[in-house]
Amino acid sequence: MGVMVDGGPAHGAFDQATAVRRTGDGRYEMQPDPRFSPASPSGDVQTAVNGGVLIAAMLRAVLDTSPHPHPVVTNAHFLRVPRIAPAQVVVTWLKQGKTAAVARTSLLQDEQLMIESTIATGSLAGGAADPALPDAMRDAQLLSWTGEPPSLPPIGECVPVEAAGGIRDQVDLRLDPATAGWLKRNPAGIPEMRGYFRLRDDRPPDAYLLAFAVDALPPVVFGLGAFGWAPTVELTWHMRAVPAMGALRVAARCRRVGGGWFDEEAEVWDSAGHLVAQSRQLARVGR
Amino acid sequence: MGVMVDGGPAHGAFDQATAVRRTGDGRYEMQPDPRFSPASPSGDVQTAVNGGVLIAAMLRAVLDTSPHPHPVVTNAHFLRVPRIAPAQVVVTWLKQGKTAAVARTSLLQDEQLMIESTIATGSLAGGAADPALPDAMRDAQLLSWTGEPPSLPPIGECVPVEAAGGIRDQVDLRLDPATAGWLKRNPAGIPEMRGYFRLRDDRPPDAYLLAFAVDALPPVVFGLGAFGWAPTVELTWHMRAVPAMGALRVAARCRRVGGGWFDEEAEVWDSAGHLVAQSRQLARVGR
Repeated sequence: MGVMVDGGPAHGAFDQATAVRRTGDGRYEMQPDPRFSPASPSGDVQTAVNGGVLIAAMLRAVLDTSPHPHPVVTNAHFLRVPRIAPAQVVVTWLKQGKTAAVARTSLLQDEQLMIESTIATGSLAGGAADPALPDAMRDAQLLSWTGEPPSLPPIGECVPVEAAGGIRDQVDLRLDPATAGWLKRNPAGIPEMRGYFRLRDDRPPDAYLLAFAVDALPPVVFGLGAFGWAPTVELTWHMRAVPAMGALRVAARCRRVGGGWFDEEAEVWDSAGHLVAQSRQLARVGR
Repeated sequence: MGVMVDGGPAHGAFDQATAVRRTGDGRYEMQPDPRFSPASPSGDVQTAVNGGVLIAAMLRAVLDTSPHPHPVVTNAHFLRVPRIAPAQVVVTWLKQGKTAAVARTSLLQDEQLMIESTIATGSLAGGAADPALPDAMRDAQLLSWTGEPPSLPPIGECVPVEAAGGIRDQVDLRLDPATAGWLKRNPAGIPEMRGYFRLRDDRPPDAYLLAFAVDALPPVVFGLGAFGWAPTVELTWHMRAVPAMGALRVAARCRRVGGGWFDEEAEVWDSAGHLVAQSRQLARVGR
């Protein structure tokens, strides 16, 4: 019998869906949860599970033995589509340094590699200087700058995406009307998606929920009318700050669609106005 | 005696600096080249070699046995700073699929892991539809969209970064005056860097040169007056199209500096106006 690392049945659906059980040294087991399967614009639920949710489970396994508290960099290659069946997570530390630690993390089913991830952990706690630090180091710690946040209408003017099975039953997503036309099969003609994101059970945001948030919006190419399933080839996200309580603002855009490939860049901002996560994924245009 | 995979001495400095020699099954040797060491604003040359140049060498090793021609995704974690001494590159294929193949690629010195990379290859050739494809697949291949290119003044109005040892002897970089103030220790106060990039020997752009281009501009935080060495923790870049001949336009920006970490997002556009590469790196603020 293994040890529950985090997220037992006392928690909500997301914590259950991302829970891992330690089964050995650097080895964990998890169960892909169909409650987090993506839905097509017409509401058809896929048999796949959202990639961000699977990544969140892999992060739990990594953080179980990490010397640092936050997943500052997560790369993930989606090699095969995991089935709704038990999966194994294997964590191998490549380096454990003072500033960052790096672990190779694999998700397998029947000994076959489904997701290959490299994860760097570090500490994002506190923008304030530590008085014990030497001057030069304090200067570097103190330097602070943030770009412009995304422009979103007030939440009351946004379009709720209705519960319709799978992930839509879990996520309370309110889309900027400028990017919500696809819901009525009238896409805006721009590959952008913006909205307020939280879970319907209002679970507070943390690193795990950010892993989901960067991949939880409908694909940006829905805005171009490409409504097919858009499989992610690779996704990298960076956690930049510990999120405050409340709904997250997620803004995703695309820079290029061509030759069957498209990118999706997302930023996640918290209710206190901080940039808390950045991501980019490369995916195939749905057919 | 191994086999030169590409880039022999007949080529210029960049091809020499990124050449790999096959020494066994999935094993290669390369030599970090101090001609590609970064320089500080005052011209002091580091003993490290530019990360993008090392990645280009790792890409040569991967493409040697790849079923697909282009490195569509490259993740790299910089665990330790490689010395100016022979290094080994080890390529392990995780999947070889019809659309994408994925290889874990490690750069080692004295059996110690210096750079850990995961690289996905694919084909970016041709935006035109293949008439042999079924209709639905042709539609996905044909969908084409590109965002706004960066705004740069004409090359004649840009500020050349003078040859001053190391990388600056190799690269012909013309900076947008709006982001060049740091050259006179008068930074603009914004973490952005834009310019025209080519090698001084005018070697034509390809995947290897793109790997360098995404990491060849001075760190964006020079624009905030943070002139110390800014070590990259992780860099991910995506190749999006085969570049046309001519100088590349590179535009880099930062979205957040805080707690000693900063991100740098770069886009590379070719002379024909195509977005050919995108990158994001997470780095430490220099001290």
